[in-house]
Amino acid sequence: MASRYLHRRRVLFHETDLAGIVHFSNFFKYMEEAEHAFLRSLGLSVHPEENWRSPVRHGWPRVSAKCDFHVPLQFEDEIEIELLVVEVRSKSIRYRGYFWKDPDGKRVRAATGEVVVVSVIADRAAGTIQSAPIPDRFREKLEPHPGLEM
Amino acid sequence: MASRYLHRRRVLFHETDLAGIVHFSNFFKYMEEAEHAFLRSLGLSVHPEENWRSPVRHGWPRVSAKCDFHVPLQFEDEIEIELLVVEVRSKSIRYRGYFWKDPDGKRVRAATGEVVVVSVIADRAAGTIQSAPIPDRFREKLEPHPGLEM
Amino acid sequence: MASRYLHRRRVLFHETDLAGIVHFSNFFKYMEEAEHAFLRSLGLSVHPEENWRSPVRHGWPRVSAKCDFHVPLQFEDEIEIELLVVEVRSKSIRYRGYFWKDPDGKRVRAATGEVVVVSVIADRAAGTIQSAPIPDRFREKLEPHPGLEM
Amino acid sequence: MASRYLHRRRVLFHETDLAGIVHFSNFFKYMEEAEHAFLRSLGLSVHPEENWRSPVRHGWPRVSAKCDFHVPLQFEDEIEIELLVVEVRSKSIRYRGYFWKDPDGKRVRAATGEVVVVSVIADRAAGTIQSAPIPDRFREKLEPHPGLEM
Repeated sequence: MASRYLHRRRVLFHETDLAGIVHFSNFFKYMEEAEHAFLRSLGLSVHPEENWRSPVRHGWPRVSAKCDFHVPLQFEDEIEIELLVVEVRSKSIRYRGYFWKDPDGKRVRAATGEVVVVSVIADRAAGTIQSAPIPDRFREKLEPHPGLEM
Repeated sequence: MASRYLHRRRVLFHETDLAGIVHFSNFFKYMEEAEHAFLRSLGLSVHPEENWRSPVRHGWPRVSAKCDFHVPLQFEDEIEIELLVVEVRSKSIRYRGYFWKDPDGKRVRAATGEVVVVSVIADRAAGTIQSAPIPDRFREKLEPHPGLEM
Repeated sequence: MASRYLHRRRVLFHETDLAGIVHFSNFFKYMEEAEHAFLRSLGLSVHPEENWRSPVRHGWPRVSAKCDFHVPLQFEDEIEIELLVVEVRSKSIRYRGYFWKDPDGKRVRAATGEVVVVSVIADRAAGTIQSAPIPDRFREKLEPHPGLEM
Repeated sequence: MASRYLHRRRVLFHETDLAGIVHFSNFFKYMEEAEHAFLRSLGLSVHPEENWRSPVRHGWPRVSAKCDFHVPLQFEDEIEIELLVVEVRSKSIRYRGYFWKDPDGKRVRAATGEVVVVSVIADRAAGTIQSAPIPDRFREKLEPHPGLEM
Protein backbone atom coordinates (compact mmCIF):
# COMPACT_ATOMS: atom_id res chain seq x y z
CA MET A 1 0.00 0.00 0.00
CA ALA A 2 1.34 3.40 -0.93
CA SER A 3 0.34 6.89 0.10
CA ARG A 4 3.29 9.16 -0.77
CA TYR A 5 5.47 9.81 -3.78
CA LEU A 6 8.32 12.19 -4.54
CA HIS A 7 8.64 13.48 -8.09
CA ARG A 8 11.60 15.58 -9.26
CA ARG A 9 11.74 17.78 -12.31
CA ARG A 10 13.15 21.05 -13.49
CA VAL A 11 11.24 24.16 -14.58
CA LEU A 12 11.21 24.46 -18.37
CA PHE A 13 11.58 27.65 -20.39
CA HIS A 14 8.11 27.54 -21.94
CA GLU A 15 6.53 27.18 -18.50
CA THR A 16 7.56 30.71 -17.55
CA ASP A 17 5.70 33.89 -18.50
CA LEU A 18 6.68 37.52 -19.05
CA ALA A 19 6.79 38.08 -15.28
CA GLY A 20 9.82 35.77 -15.32
CA ILE A 21 8.16 33.08 -13.18
CA VAL A 22 6.29 29.83 -13.76
CA HIS A 23 2.75 30.49 -14.96
CA PHE A 24 0.39 29.36 -12.22
CA SER A 25 -1.52 26.97 -14.50
CA ASN A 26 1.60 24.78 -14.70
CA PHE A 27 1.42 23.86 -11.02
CA PHE A 28 -1.71 21.90 -11.86
CA LYS A 29 0.12 20.15 -14.68
CA TYR A 30 3.07 19.39 -12.38
CA MET A 31 0.76 17.83 -9.82
CA GLU A 32 -0.93 15.64 -12.43
CA GLU A 33 2.50 14.61 -13.72
CA ALA A 34 3.45 13.54 -10.18
CA GLU A 35 0.16 11.64 -9.77
CA HIS A 36 0.74 9.68 -12.97
CA ALA A 37 4.36 8.94 -12.05
CA PHE A 38 3.14 7.74 -8.64
CA LEU A 39 0.64 5.38 -10.25
CA ARG A 40 3.26 4.17 -12.73
CA SER A 41 5.57 3.36 -9.79
CA LEU A 42 2.77 1.02 -8.60
CA GLY A 43 2.30 -0.60 -12.00
CA LEU A 44 -0.85 1.40 -12.68
CA SER A 45 -1.88 3.77 -15.44
CA VAL A 46 -4.80 6.18 -15.80
CA HIS A 47 -4.97 5.11 -19.43
CA PRO A 48 -4.11 1.41 -19.63
CA GLU A 49 -3.46 -0.47 -22.83
CA GLU A 50 -7.03 -1.82 -23.12
CA ASN A 51 -8.42 1.73 -23.11
CA TRP A 52 -7.02 2.42 -26.56
CA ARG A 53 -9.14 -0.11 -28.35
CA SER A 54 -12.30 -0.25 -26.32
CA PRO A 55 -15.25 2.12 -26.81
CA VAL A 56 -15.93 1.85 -23.06
CA ARG A 57 -13.08 3.31 -21.11
CA HIS A 58 -12.21 3.89 -17.50
CA GLY A 59 -10.90 7.35 -16.64
CA TRP A 60 -10.02 9.74 -13.83
CA PRO A 61 -11.31 13.27 -14.52
CA ARG A 62 -10.73 15.95 -11.90
CA VAL A 63 -13.80 17.27 -10.07
CA SER A 64 -11.91 19.95 -8.19
CA ALA A 65 -8.44 21.42 -8.06
CA LYS A 66 -6.89 24.16 -5.99
CA CYS A 67 -3.49 25.59 -5.26
CA ASP A 68 -1.99 28.19 -2.95
CA PHE A 69 1.14 29.85 -4.27
CA HIS A 70 3.71 30.84 -1.66
CA VAL A 71 6.98 31.48 -3.51
CA PRO A 72 7.53 31.90 -7.27
CA LEU A 73 9.37 29.27 -9.28
CA GLN A 74 11.83 30.28 -11.97
CA PHE A 75 13.46 28.83 -15.06
CA GLU A 76 15.75 25.87 -14.33
CA ASP A 77 14.71 25.69 -10.68
CA GLU A 78 14.83 22.12 -9.52
CA ILE A 79 11.63 21.19 -7.76
CA GLU A 80 10.24 18.21 -5.89
CA ILE A 81 6.55 17.51 -5.88
CA GLU A 82 5.60 15.57 -2.75
CA LEU A 83 2.32 13.85 -3.53
CA LEU A 84 0.17 12.50 -0.70
CA VAL A 85 -3.01 10.43 -0.78
CA VAL A 86 -5.35 12.33 1.54
CA GLU A 87 -8.57 10.39 1.18
CA VAL A 88 -9.84 7.32 -0.67
CA ARG A 89 -13.63 7.19 -0.99
CA SER A 90 -15.80 4.73 -2.92
CA LYS A 91 -15.52 6.59 -6.22
CA SER A 92 -12.96 9.33 -5.68
CA ILE A 93 -9.46 10.05 -4.42
CA ARG A 94 -8.12 13.25 -2.92
CA TYR A 95 -4.43 14.02 -3.42
CA ARG A 96 -2.38 16.80 -1.88
CA GLY A 97 0.81 18.14 -3.37
CA TYR A 98 3.63 20.07 -1.73
CA PHE A 99 5.91 21.82 -4.17
CA TRP A 100 9.46 22.04 -2.81
CA LYS A 101 11.85 24.51 -4.39
CA ASP A 102 15.60 23.81 -4.06
CA PRO A 103 14.81 20.39 -2.57
CA ASP A 104 18.41 19.54 -1.68
CA GLY A 105 19.14 22.96 -0.23
CA LYS A 106 16.85 25.39 1.56
CA ARG A 107 13.81 23.24 0.69
CA VAL A 108 11.31 26.10 0.52
CA ARG A 109 7.67 25.19 0.06
CA ALA A 110 6.66 27.07 -3.08
CA ALA A 111 3.05 25.94 -3.29
CA THR A 112 0.43 23.62 -1.85
CA GLY A 113 -2.16 22.01 -4.07
CA GLU A 114 -5.06 19.64 -3.78
CA VAL A 115 -7.05 17.76 -6.35
CA VAL A 116 -10.01 15.38 -6.25
CA VAL A 117 -10.18 12.80 -9.03
CA VAL A 118 -13.22 10.67 -9.70
CA SER A 119 -13.36 7.18 -11.17
CA VAL A 120 -15.58 7.15 -14.26
CA ILE A 121 -16.68 4.90 -17.09
CA ALA A 122 -16.94 6.74 -20.40
CA ASP A 123 -18.97 5.04 -23.10
CA ARG A 124 -18.11 6.68 -26.40
CA ALA A 125 -20.84 4.95 -28.37
CA ALA A 126 -23.54 6.04 -25.94
CA GLY A 127 -21.93 9.44 -25.34
CA THR A 128 -22.10 9.04 -21.54
CA ILE A 129 -19.69 9.48 -18.65
CA GLN A 130 -20.67 8.03 -15.27
CA SER A 131 -18.92 7.76 -11.94
CA ALA A 132 -18.02 4.21 -10.97
CA PRO A 133 -16.39 2.43 -8.03
CA ILE A 134 -12.61 2.71 -7.95
CA PRO A 135 -11.21 -0.37 -9.72
CA ASP A 136 -9.73 -2.96 -7.36
CA ARG A 137 -6.29 -2.68 -8.93
CA PHE A 138 -6.17 0.92 -7.65
CA ARG A 139 -7.92 0.28 -4.34
CA GLU A 140 -5.50 -2.49 -3.43
CA LYS A 141 -2.52 -0.21 -3.73
CA LEU A 142 -3.58 3.20 -2.41
CA GLU A 143 -4.26 4.26 1.15
CA PRO A 144 -4.50 7.63 2.88
CA HIS A 145 -1.34 9.02 4.36
CA PRO A 146 -1.56 9.00 8.16
CA GLY A 147 -1.47 12.24 10.09
CA LEU A 148 -2.81 14.55 7.40
CA GLU A 149 -5.41 17.05 8.47
CA MET A 150 -8.14 17.31 5.86
CA MET B 1 -17.26 51.09 -11.43
CA ALA B 2 -17.39 47.58 -12.81
CA SER B 3 -17.77 44.21 -11.16
CA ARG B 4 -18.83 41.77 -13.90
CA TYR B 5 -17.63 40.81 -17.34
CA LEU B 6 -18.72 38.29 -19.95
CA HIS B 7 -16.04 36.73 -22.12
CA ARG B 8 -16.85 34.43 -25.04
CA ARG B 9 -14.51 31.99 -26.72
CA ARG B 10 -14.46 28.60 -28.30
CA VAL B 11 -12.61 25.50 -27.15
CA LEU B 12 -9.48 24.92 -29.24
CA PHE B 13 -8.17 21.57 -30.44
CA HIS B 14 -4.92 21.71 -28.48
CA GLU B 15 -6.83 22.38 -25.27
CA THR B 16 -8.32 18.89 -25.31
CA ASP B 17 -6.60 15.72 -24.09
CA LEU B 18 -6.87 12.03 -24.95
CA ALA B 19 -10.04 11.75 -22.86
CA GLY B 20 -11.64 13.95 -25.53
CA ILE B 21 -12.35 16.84 -23.15
CA VAL B 22 -10.69 20.11 -22.20
CA HIS B 23 -7.71 19.49 -19.92
CA PHE B 24 -8.57 20.93 -16.51
CA SER B 25 -5.52 23.20 -16.42
CA ASN B 26 -7.05 25.24 -19.25
CA PHE B 27 -9.94 26.45 -17.09
CA PHE B 28 -7.39 28.45 -15.13
CA LYS B 29 -6.04 29.93 -18.37
CA TYR B 30 -9.58 30.73 -19.54
CA MET B 31 -10.30 32.56 -16.31
CA GLU B 32 -7.12 34.63 -16.56
CA GLU B 33 -7.97 35.41 -20.18
CA ALA B 34 -11.38 36.71 -19.04
CA GLU B 35 -9.76 38.75 -16.26
CA HIS B 36 -7.39 40.46 -18.68
CA ALA B 37 -10.18 41.11 -21.19
CA PHE B 38 -12.24 42.62 -18.35
CA LEU B 39 -9.41 44.95 -17.38
CA ARG B 40 -8.82 45.88 -21.03
CA SER B 41 -12.50 46.80 -21.32
CA LEU B 42 -11.80 49.31 -18.52
CA GLY B 43 -8.69 50.72 -20.18
CA LEU B 44 -6.41 48.78 -17.84
CA SER B 45 -3.65 46.25 -18.36
CA VAL B 46 -1.78 43.95 -15.99
CA HIS B 47 1.33 44.75 -17.99
CA PRO B 48 1.13 48.38 -19.10
CA GLU B 49 3.49 49.98 -21.58
CA GLU B 50 5.80 51.46 -18.93
CA ASN B 51 6.46 48.00 -17.49
CA TRP B 52 8.47 46.99 -20.54
CA ARG B 53 11.25 49.47 -20.01
CA SER B 54 11.38 49.88 -16.27
CA PRO B 55 13.36 47.60 -13.97
CA VAL B 56 10.70 48.18 -11.30
CA ARG B 57 7.40 46.75 -12.43
CA HIS B 58 3.92 46.40 -11.06
CA GLY B 59 2.34 42.97 -11.40
CA TRP B 60 -0.55 40.75 -10.32
CA PRO B 61 0.60 37.25 -9.40
CA ARG B 62 -1.98 34.75 -8.19
CA VAL B 63 -1.78 33.68 -4.54
CA SER B 64 -4.49 31.07 -4.85
CA ALA B 65 -6.64 29.48 -7.50
CA LYS B 66 -9.33 26.84 -7.39
CA CYS B 67 -11.92 25.35 -9.67
CA ASP B 68 -14.78 22.86 -9.39
CA PHE B 69 -15.55 20.99 -12.59
CA HIS B 70 -19.19 20.09 -13.14
CA VAL B 71 -19.56 19.19 -16.83
CA PRO B 72 -16.80 18.47 -19.38
CA LEU B 73 -16.09 20.88 -22.24
CA GLN B 74 -15.33 19.57 -25.70
CA PHE B 75 -13.65 20.72 -28.89
CA GLU B 76 -15.45 23.63 -30.57
CA ASP B 77 -17.83 24.14 -27.66
CA GLU B 78 -18.73 27.79 -27.37
CA ILE B 79 -18.31 28.95 -23.80
CA GLU B 80 -18.93 32.10 -21.85
CA ILE B 81 -16.80 32.95 -18.86
CA GLU B 82 -18.76 35.15 -16.44
CA LEU B 83 -16.20 36.94 -14.33
CA LEU B 84 -17.24 38.57 -11.07
CA VAL B 85 -15.30 40.75 -8.65
CA VAL B 86 -15.95 39.12 -5.27
CA GLU B 87 -13.74 41.15 -3.00
CA VAL B 88 -11.39 44.13 -3.22
CA ARG B 89 -8.96 44.37 -0.30
CA SER B 90 -6.05 46.78 0.22
CA LYS B 91 -3.56 44.67 -1.75
CA SER B 92 -5.56 41.88 -3.34
CA ILE B 93 -8.62 41.12 -5.45
CA ARG B 94 -10.73 37.97 -5.45
CA TYR B 95 -12.45 37.04 -8.71
CA ARG B 96 -14.99 34.29 -9.31
CA GLY B 97 -15.64 32.74 -12.69
CA TYR B 98 -18.67 30.83 -13.90
CA PHE B 99 -18.03 28.81 -17.05
CA TRP B 100 -21.18 28.56 -19.15
CA LYS B 101 -21.35 25.89 -21.85
CA ASP B 102 -23.72 26.45 -24.78
CA PRO B 103 -24.36 30.02 -23.54
CA ASP B 104 -27.09 30.79 -26.08
CA GLY B 105 -28.86 27.47 -25.58
CA LYS B 106 -29.11 25.28 -22.52
CA ARG B 107 -26.58 27.45 -20.67
CA VAL B 108 -25.13 24.69 -18.51
CA ARG B 109 -22.64 25.71 -15.84
CA ALA B 110 -19.57 23.63 -16.66
CA ALA B 111 -17.28 24.88 -13.90
CA THR B 112 -16.88 27.40 -11.09
CA GLY B 113 -13.52 28.94 -10.34
CA GLU B 114 -12.02 31.44 -7.98
CA VAL B 115 -8.69 33.20 -7.95
CA VAL B 116 -7.00 35.70 -5.64
CA VAL B 117 -4.52 38.06 -7.25
CA VAL B 118 -2.16 40.27 -5.30
CA SER B 119 -0.74 43.63 -6.27
CA VAL B 120 3.06 43.52 -6.20
CA ILE B 121 6.10 45.60 -7.07
CA ALA B 122 8.89 43.54 -8.60
CA ASP B 123 12.34 45.12 -8.58
CA ARG B 124 14.49 43.21 -11.03
CA ALA B 125 17.74 44.90 -10.03
CA ALA B 126 17.24 44.09 -6.37
CA GLY B 127 15.68 40.70 -7.08
CA THR B 128 12.70 41.38 -4.82
CA ILE B 129 8.93 41.06 -5.13
CA GLN B 130 6.75 42.78 -2.52
CA SER B 131 3.03 43.21 -2.10
CA ALA B 132 1.85 46.79 -2.56
CA PRO B 133 -1.42 48.73 -2.36
CA ILE B 134 -3.65 48.30 -5.39
CA PRO B 135 -2.87 51.18 -7.78
CA ASP B 136 -5.55 53.88 -7.86
CA ARG B 137 -6.23 53.34 -11.55
CA PHE B 138 -7.50 49.84 -10.64
CA ARG B 139 -9.21 50.80 -7.39
CA GLU B 140 -11.21 53.55 -9.06
CA LYS B 141 -12.76 51.11 -11.53
CA LEU B 142 -13.35 47.87 -9.64
CA GLU B 143 -15.92 47.08 -7.01
CA PRO B 144 -17.34 43.87 -5.55
CA HIS B 145 -20.42 42.50 -7.22
CA PRO B 146 -23.42 42.81 -4.87
CA GLY B 147 -25.17 39.72 -3.62
CA LEU B 148 -22.29 37.27 -3.88
CA GLU B 149 -21.80 34.96 -0.95
CA MET B 150 -18.11 34.63 -0.19
CA MET C 1 -14.66 27.46 -53.11
CA ALA C 2 -12.43 29.10 -50.54
CA SER C 3 -8.68 29.50 -50.30
CA ARG C 4 -8.05 32.32 -47.81
CA TYR C 5 -9.16 33.18 -44.30
CA LEU C 6 -8.35 35.97 -41.87
CA HIS C 7 -8.35 35.15 -38.18
CA ARG C 8 -7.95 37.80 -35.47
CA ARG C 9 -6.93 37.25 -31.90
CA ARG C 10 -4.92 38.81 -29.16
CA VAL C 11 -1.77 37.50 -27.49
CA LEU C 12 -2.56 36.01 -24.07
CA PHE C 13 -0.46 36.31 -20.93
CA HIS C 14 0.31 32.61 -20.61
CA GLU C 15 1.58 32.52 -24.21
CA THR C 16 4.57 34.69 -23.31
CA ASP C 17 7.80 33.45 -21.74
CA LEU C 18 10.46 35.00 -19.52
CA ALA C 19 11.98 36.76 -22.54
CA GLY C 20 8.79 38.83 -22.59
CA ILE C 21 7.66 37.56 -26.00
CA VAL C 22 5.34 34.87 -27.34
CA HIS C 23 6.92 31.44 -27.02
CA PHE C 24 7.59 30.18 -30.53
CA SER C 25 5.56 26.98 -30.06
CA ASN C 26 2.41 29.11 -29.87
CA PHE C 27 2.71 30.21 -33.50
CA PHE C 28 1.92 26.61 -34.45
CA LYS C 29 -1.12 26.65 -32.18
CA TYR C 30 -2.25 29.98 -33.65
CA MET C 31 -2.03 28.60 -37.16
CA GLU C 32 -4.06 25.52 -36.26
CA GLU C 33 -6.62 27.75 -34.57
CA ALA C 34 -6.93 29.75 -37.81
CA GLU C 35 -7.24 26.55 -39.85
CA HIS C 36 -10.09 25.28 -37.71
CA ALA C 37 -11.85 28.66 -37.77
CA PHE C 38 -11.48 28.66 -41.57
CA LEU C 39 -13.08 25.22 -41.83
CA ARG C 40 -15.85 26.23 -39.41
CA SER C 41 -16.59 29.23 -41.64
CA LEU C 42 -17.24 26.67 -44.41
CA GLY C 43 -19.46 24.49 -42.24
CA LEU C 44 -16.70 21.95 -41.73
CA SER C 45 -15.00 20.51 -38.68
CA VAL C 46 -11.88 18.40 -38.24
CA HIS C 47 -13.79 16.52 -35.56
CA PRO C 48 -17.44 16.30 -36.62
CA GLU C 49 -20.24 15.10 -34.38
CA GLU C 50 -20.16 11.52 -35.70
CA ASN C 51 -16.52 11.16 -34.68
CA TRP C 52 -17.42 11.19 -31.02
CA ARG C 53 -19.35 7.96 -31.08
CA SER C 54 -17.69 5.95 -33.80
CA PRO C 55 -14.63 3.77 -33.23
CA VAL C 56 -13.55 4.58 -36.79
CA ARG C 57 -12.79 8.27 -37.11
CA HIS C 58 -11.58 10.63 -39.76
CA GLY C 59 -8.79 12.98 -38.75
CA TRP C 60 -6.21 15.48 -39.98
CA PRO C 61 -2.81 14.95 -38.35
CA ARG C 62 0.06 17.17 -39.38
CA VAL C 63 2.93 15.53 -41.30
CA SER C 64 5.10 18.61 -41.31
CA ALA C 65 5.14 22.09 -39.86
CA LYS C 66 7.53 24.97 -40.11
CA CYS C 67 7.71 28.62 -39.21
CA ASP C 68 10.09 31.52 -39.76
CA PHE C 69 10.01 34.16 -37.04
CA HIS C 70 10.64 37.72 -38.20
CA VAL C 71 9.44 40.02 -35.39
CA PRO C 72 8.54 39.10 -31.79
CA LEU C 73 4.94 39.25 -30.58
CA GLN C 74 4.14 40.59 -27.14
CA PHE C 75 1.37 40.41 -24.55
CA GLU C 76 -1.89 41.98 -25.74
CA ASP C 77 -0.63 42.49 -29.29
CA GLU C 78 -3.49 42.17 -31.70
CA ILE C 79 -2.59 39.83 -34.51
CA GLU C 80 -4.16 38.63 -37.71
CA ILE C 81 -3.37 35.18 -39.06
CA GLU C 82 -3.83 35.13 -42.84
CA LEU C 83 -4.34 31.51 -43.79
CA LEU C 84 -3.91 30.42 -47.40
CA VAL C 85 -4.54 27.08 -49.07
CA VAL C 86 -1.33 26.44 -51.00
CA GLU C 87 -1.93 22.96 -52.37
CA VAL C 88 -4.67 20.34 -52.37
CA ARG C 89 -3.43 16.85 -53.20
CA SER C 90 -5.33 13.54 -53.14
CA LYS C 91 -4.74 12.92 -49.43
CA SER C 92 -3.14 16.06 -48.08
CA ILE C 93 -3.48 19.84 -47.90
CA ARG C 94 -0.73 22.41 -47.53
CA TYR C 95 -1.60 25.65 -45.73
CA ARG C 96 0.51 28.77 -45.39
CA GLY C 97 0.05 31.31 -42.63
CA TYR C 98 1.17 34.93 -42.49
CA PHE C 99 1.15 36.40 -39.00
CA TRP C 100 0.38 40.12 -39.10
CA LYS C 101 1.20 42.22 -36.05
CA ASP C 102 -0.72 45.47 -35.53
CA PRO C 103 -3.04 44.52 -38.45
CA ASP C 104 -4.89 47.84 -38.51
CA GLY C 105 -1.75 49.93 -38.24
CA LYS C 106 1.75 49.23 -39.46
CA ARG C 107 0.78 45.68 -40.42
CA VAL C 108 4.19 44.11 -39.83
CA ARG C 109 4.65 40.49 -40.83
CA ALA C 110 5.80 38.80 -37.63
CA ALA C 111 6.11 35.25 -38.92
CA THR C 112 5.47 32.95 -41.86
CA GLY C 113 4.41 29.39 -41.31
CA GLU C 114 3.49 26.35 -43.34
CA VAL C 115 1.85 23.09 -42.42
CA VAL C 116 0.91 19.93 -44.30
CA VAL C 117 -2.08 18.02 -42.98
CA VAL C 118 -3.01 14.55 -44.13
CA SER C 119 -6.43 12.97 -44.29
CA VAL C 120 -6.51 9.76 -42.24
CA ILE C 121 -8.87 7.08 -40.99
CA ALA C 122 -8.09 5.98 -37.45
CA ASP C 123 -9.59 2.69 -36.35
CA ARG C 124 -9.42 2.54 -32.58
CA ALA C 125 -10.48 -1.10 -32.33
CA ALA C 126 -7.80 -2.22 -34.76
CA GLY C 127 -5.25 0.27 -33.49
CA THR C 128 -4.44 1.54 -36.98
CA ILE C 129 -4.15 4.94 -38.66
CA GLN C 130 -4.09 5.08 -42.47
CA SER C 131 -4.04 7.89 -44.96
CA ALA C 132 -7.24 8.21 -46.97
CA PRO C 133 -8.59 10.37 -49.79
CA ILE C 134 -9.75 13.81 -48.69
CA PRO C 135 -13.50 13.57 -47.97
CA ASP C 136 -15.68 15.18 -50.64
CA ARG C 137 -17.18 17.66 -48.18
CA PHE C 138 -13.69 19.18 -47.83
CA ARG C 139 -12.65 18.81 -51.46
CA GLU C 140 -15.75 20.62 -52.68
CA LYS C 141 -14.94 23.69 -50.64
CA LEU C 142 -11.17 24.13 -50.73
CA GLU C 143 -8.96 25.24 -53.58
CA PRO C 144 -5.40 26.54 -53.79
CA HIS C 145 -4.97 30.28 -53.63
CA PRO C 146 -3.82 31.60 -57.02
CA GLY C 147 -0.46 33.27 -57.35
CA LEU C 148 1.31 31.58 -54.48
CA GLU C 149 4.81 30.37 -55.15
CA MET C 150 5.37 27.00 -53.53
CA MET D 1 33.66 20.34 -27.48
CA ALA D 2 30.21 18.81 -27.73
CA SER D 3 27.86 18.30 -30.64
CA ARG D 4 25.35 15.66 -29.54
CA TYR D 5 23.07 15.09 -26.58
CA LEU D 6 20.52 12.46 -25.64
CA HIS D 7 17.51 13.56 -23.62
CA ARG D 8 14.97 11.09 -22.22
CA ARG D 9 11.46 11.86 -21.07
CA ARG D 10 7.99 10.43 -21.05
CA VAL D 11 4.89 11.76 -22.79
CA LEU D 12 2.58 13.53 -20.32
CA PHE D 13 -1.20 13.36 -20.24
CA HIS D 14 -1.75 17.06 -20.97
CA GLU D 15 0.48 16.83 -24.04
CA THR D 16 -2.05 14.62 -25.83
CA ASP D 17 -5.14 15.85 -27.67
CA LEU D 18 -8.53 14.36 -28.49
CA ALA D 19 -6.99 12.33 -31.33
CA GLY D 20 -5.20 10.39 -28.59
CA ILE D 21 -1.71 11.43 -29.68
CA VAL D 22 0.81 14.10 -28.73
CA HIS D 23 -0.22 17.48 -30.10
CA PHE D 24 2.33 18.46 -32.74
CA SER D 25 3.22 21.75 -31.04
CA ASN D 26 4.80 19.77 -28.19
CA PHE D 27 7.56 18.40 -30.40
CA PHE D 28 8.92 21.94 -30.57
CA LYS D 29 8.79 22.18 -26.78
CA TYR D 30 10.51 18.80 -26.44
CA MET D 31 13.31 19.91 -28.72
CA GLU D 32 13.85 23.13 -26.76
CA GLU D 33 13.83 21.12 -23.53
CA ALA D 34 16.60 18.90 -24.98
CA GLU D 35 18.58 21.95 -26.12
CA HIS D 36 18.50 23.49 -22.64
CA ALA D 37 19.42 20.18 -21.00
CA PHE D 38 22.33 19.88 -23.45
CA LEU D 39 23.58 23.35 -22.55
CA ARG D 40 23.14 22.64 -18.84
CA SER D 41 25.27 19.51 -19.26
CA LEU D 42 28.01 21.88 -20.48
CA GLY D 43 27.60 24.30 -17.58
CA LEU D 44 25.70 26.77 -19.77
CA SER D 45 22.27 28.37 -19.53
CA VAL D 46 20.21 30.38 -21.99
CA HIS D 47 19.18 32.52 -19.04
CA PRO D 48 22.13 32.81 -16.68
CA GLU D 49 21.94 34.28 -13.20
CA GLU D 50 23.12 37.75 -14.27
CA ASN D 51 20.21 38.05 -16.71
CA TRP D 52 17.70 38.34 -13.90
CA ARG D 53 18.98 41.62 -12.57
CA SER D 54 20.33 43.35 -15.63
CA PRO D 55 18.23 45.45 -18.00
CA VAL D 56 20.51 44.33 -20.84
CA ARG D 57 20.19 40.60 -21.36
CA HIS D 58 21.59 38.00 -23.68
CA GLY D 59 19.08 35.61 -25.23
CA TRP D 60 18.54 32.94 -27.86
CA PRO D 61 15.27 33.46 -29.76
CA ARG D 62 14.38 31.04 -32.54
CA VAL D 63 14.40 32.42 -36.09
CA SER D 64 13.06 29.27 -37.65
CA ALA D 65 11.71 25.91 -36.59
CA LYS D 66 10.43 22.93 -38.50
CA CYS D 67 9.47 19.36 -37.87
CA ASP D 68 8.42 16.34 -39.92
CA PHE D 69 6.15 13.91 -38.11
CA HIS D 70 6.59 10.25 -39.02
CA VAL D 71 4.88 8.23 -36.28
CA PRO D 72 2.49 9.44 -33.57
CA LEU D 73 3.53 9.52 -29.92
CA GLN D 74 1.11 8.47 -27.21
CA PHE D 75 0.58 8.94 -23.49
CA GLU D 76 3.35 7.42 -21.37
CA ASP D 77 5.52 6.60 -24.38
CA GLU D 78 9.14 6.85 -23.41
CA ILE D 79 11.04 8.93 -25.93
CA GLU D 80 14.61 9.96 -26.54
CA ILE D 81 15.39 13.25 -28.20
CA GLU D 82 18.76 13.04 -29.96
CA LEU D 83 19.98 16.60 -30.36
CA LEU D 84 22.73 17.40 -32.84
CA VAL D 85 24.59 20.63 -33.53
CA VAL D 86 24.36 21.02 -37.30
CA GLU D 87 25.96 24.39 -37.83
CA VAL D 88 27.63 27.11 -35.78
CA ARG D 89 27.75 30.47 -37.50
CA SER D 90 28.90 33.85 -36.17
CA LYS D 91 25.55 34.72 -34.60
CA SER D 92 23.41 31.63 -34.91
CA ILE D 93 23.31 27.89 -34.26
CA ARG D 94 21.34 25.25 -36.11
CA TYR D 95 20.23 22.18 -34.14
CA ARG D 96 18.62 19.02 -35.44
CA GLY D 97 16.51 16.71 -33.33
CA TYR D 98 15.64 13.07 -33.89
CA PHE D 99 12.72 11.87 -31.80
CA TRP D 100 13.09 8.18 -30.94
CA LYS D 101 10.04 6.29 -29.73
CA ASP D 102 10.60 3.16 -27.62
CA PRO D 103 14.33 3.99 -27.45
CA ASP D 104 15.35 0.75 -25.71
CA GLY D 105 13.24 -1.43 -27.99
CA LYS D 106 12.26 -0.97 -31.60
CA ARG D 107 13.75 2.54 -31.60
CA VAL D 108 11.38 4.00 -34.20
CA ARG D 109 12.07 7.53 -35.41
CA ALA D 110 8.85 9.39 -34.66
CA ALA D 111 9.88 12.82 -35.89
CA THR D 112 12.74 14.93 -37.20
CA GLY D 113 13.03 18.57 -36.29
CA GLU D 114 15.34 21.48 -36.91
CA VAL D 115 15.65 24.85 -35.29
CA VAL D 116 17.85 27.89 -35.82
CA VAL D 117 18.54 30.02 -32.75
CA VAL D 118 20.16 33.43 -32.90
CA SER D 119 22.30 35.13 -30.30
CA VAL D 120 20.78 38.49 -29.31
CA ILE D 121 21.20 41.33 -26.86
CA ALA D 122 17.89 42.66 -25.56
CA ASP D 123 17.96 46.10 -23.96
CA ARG D 124 14.78 46.53 -21.99
CA ALA D 125 15.32 50.21 -21.25
CA ALA D 126 15.83 51.04 -24.91
CA GLY D 127 13.24 48.52 -26.09
CA THR D 128 15.60 46.98 -28.64
CA ILE D 129 16.67 43.45 -29.57
CA GLN D 130 19.76 43.03 -31.76
CA SER D 131 21.66 40.02 -33.01
CA ALA D 132 25.12 39.70 -31.50
CA PRO D 133 28.13 37.37 -31.84
CA ILE D 134 27.75 34.08 -29.99
CA PRO D 135 29.30 34.53 -26.54
CA ASP D 136 32.68 32.81 -26.15
CA ARG D 137 31.41 30.59 -23.34
CA PHE D 138 29.07 28.96 -25.90
CA ARG D 139 31.49 29.01 -28.83
CA GLU D 140 34.19 27.25 -26.84
CA LYS D 141 31.94 24.31 -26.13
CA LEU D 142 29.84 23.72 -29.23
CA GLU D 143 30.88 22.32 -32.57
CA PRO D 144 28.99 20.85 -35.53
CA HIS D 145 28.45 17.13 -35.51
CA PRO D 146 30.53 15.50 -38.28
CA GLY D 147 28.79 13.69 -41.08
CA LEU D 148 25.50 15.51 -41.05
CA GLU D 149 24.10 16.54 -44.36
CA MET D 150 22.63 20.04 -44.15
